[in-house]
Amino acid sequence: MLPEENVREYYMIRDIRDTPKALDAVVKSLDGISEVAASARKFRKIFFIGCGSSYYAVLFGSWPLMKNGSVLAFALPSSELILHFSDAVNSDSLVVGVSRSGRTAETLKALEICRGKGAYTVGFTIEGGSEITGIVDEPVVLDIGEEKSIIMTKSFTAFSLSTAMFSSILSERISGEKQTLIDECKAIPSLARSLLSYEDKIAATSKRLLSENIERFIFLGSGPSYPIALEGALKVKETSYVATEGLHLLEFRHGPMATIGERLTLVISCFLGENTVHLKNFVSEFAGKGADIILISNSIDLGESTLKLPPEYSGECKALLSIIPMQILAYYYAVGKGRDPDKPRNLSRYIQRF
Amino acid sequence: MLPEENVREYYMIRDIRDTPKALDAVVKSLDGISEVAASARKFRKIFFIGCGSSYYAVLFGSWPLMKNGSVLAFALPSSELILHFSDAVNSDSLVVGVSRSGRTAETLKALEICRGKGAYTVGFTIEGGSEITGIVDEPVVLDIGEEKSIIMTKSFTAFSLSTAMFSSILSERISGEKQTLIDECKAIPSLARSLLSYEDKIAATSKRLLSENIERFIFLGSGPSYPIALEGALKVKETSYVATEGLHLLEFRHGPMATIGERLTLVISCFLGENTVHLKNFVSEFAGKGADIILISNSIDLGESTLKLPPEYSGECKALLSIIPMQILAYYYAVGKGRDPDKPRNLSRYIQRF
Repeated sequence: MLPEENVREYYMIRDIRDTPKALDAVVKSLDGISEVAASARKFRKIFFIGCGSSYYAVLFGSWPLMKNGSVLAFALPSSELILHFSDAVNSDSLVVGVSRSGRTAETLKALEICRGKGAYTVGFTIEGGSEITGIVDEPVVLDIGEEKSIIMTKSFTAFSLSTAMFSSILSERISGEKQTLIDECKAIPSLARSLLSYEDKIAATSKRLLSENIERFIFLGSGPSYPIALEGALKVKETSYVATEGLHLLEFRHGPMATIGERLTLVISCFLGENTVHLKNFVSEFAGKGADIILISNSIDLGESTLKLPPEYSGECKALLSIIPMQILAYYYAVGKGRDPDKPRNLSRYIQRF
Repeated sequence: MLPEENVREYYMIRDIRDTPKALDAVVKSLDGISEVAASARKFRKIFFIGCGSSYYAVLFGSWPLMKNGSVLAFALPSSELILHFSDAVNSDSLVVGVSRSGRTAETLKALEICRGKGAYTVGFTIEGGSEITGIVDEPVVLDIGEEKSIIMTKSFTAFSLSTAMFSSILSERISGEKQTLIDECKAIPSLARSLLSYEDKIAATSKRLLSENIERFIFLGSGPSYPIALEGALKVKETSYVATEGLHLLEFRHGPMATIGERLTLVISCFLGENTVHLKNFVSEFAGKGADIILISNSIDLGESTLKLPPEYSGECKALLSIIPMQILAYYYAVGKGRDPDKPRNLSRYIQRF
């Protein structure tokens, strides 16, 4: 991509391009995930935990259960569970932890605490034989290959999809109603493949942002797009160190809108099915006030900086796909700024101490 | 304050200085709040909703119930309830809405939807006779006087305290265990009064930030301090338009730590009781990597930019008090930047359209 500029290719972009293959592997593991879900007895409380990108992955993955609303489901950073919620965990609890390396100190500690309290524990990782697999009642090892960059990209998407599938299965069992999410999930890998064709367009957008000295981003999303907005903000922040944040889409009107007029760009993921029409007015309102907007949407088009996706991107789970253009944006923006996205400052592959 | 510089005093700082009186009024209304809580039958799900600062207030206020973990309690932006969670609301639900004006479009609409589904609704406001009082089953009108600034300050603190009291009462009833939170809450107004004595020190800190051209802030908090970090970030953003965000304290290690080295300041609220000792190392780690830190804590001291509070500030509810120094910081920083904090750009007193 952009070969004429002789951009060195880092691991990060190769990992991103590997996403469809990783998602194929996730969909292939559906039977295994179903078995793990079936092995779990009925629970009154379900906690999903992780750190950093893994926390945002479970925030997305817990969506089908959160929305179901008939069971107590929470997504929390692992540290928050350790510090504040361990008294709420008991033998009536299912705790689902995600750690790419299988070695993240806080997640391991939280899972150990929860097991000690009689909770049933499930651990998602991509590292077979890592510590998490020895700690939990049921490990789920996703066979998506190595992720060479310190930055999580394809693994984020794989954990998001796999935990969402897990939640959908549990949600089906709890409500007794067939969830459409499982079928939606199966369509995700091929849609991810098509999305990669936008790489050049997104690289051009990154170039435009750099030429306009944009160094501040607010990522917005509603419902299942909200964790994606948080993860998009994290991706840009940890690769380029510029100011980013993620917010609920319509919360932007309640205070943060004061920032329109500053040099900043809004990145909006808008995949809302039947409610989208309603939201169109709000997104147009932000544009009307002069906001610079990069929009990723299956239904709204604001012109040049919109990634307008075809109708097959409809459905709640499809919101996950908007992380791919955000990751590509983060990559080209960081490289254009002269950062090495594979070696982010102050960070390591996983945090070993808690 | 700082009279030698002839700073014009805006409504915002007068509202902040009125906080202890507002909190006195909240504590005096404890009997009324208890009656409303007692009138509510037993519920399986409790939703807390609001927009902007009112959303962060209910995120704090729902803490005693969230932590209790034996009932399904969620805090959500009103818009998210309308768009995604209305199917989860039924006659088994209690919905608590907060709106300063009693007229916020999204909150009114969400409450109407919930009533239509048979939920029991409670509405907190400071405007007697406003629309919300006619919509809900039980209105709670806090008699804290007018708030003249568009920016919410004393009303945020009053809503946070009153909804936390409401949650504590419900939590007591659900668990059958005496909660210490109610007694803690009663101590809040006089502690708020003492905190105002730090105004000069905080004004001096704001001056230092301005002289060092700091235009980026990350607010960090854990547990009950997390919503306070979000609200602190919002206060600075909506008065000065600079880049701010709020994050869970230890999530900073999982990605955002890459930003240490940029020109930015961390504002940390750390009121953690017995767990604080443990966190001390992490806060010191951020400082050791060169982060500029403004710390508000009852137990950790990092030197000049620490607001070290005496031991009577221990206890989870006391975390709420850290919003007062953050509001004062936002005020002096905005005024020092030449902004009018009473007339934030693009914002109005409440949003009338959804």
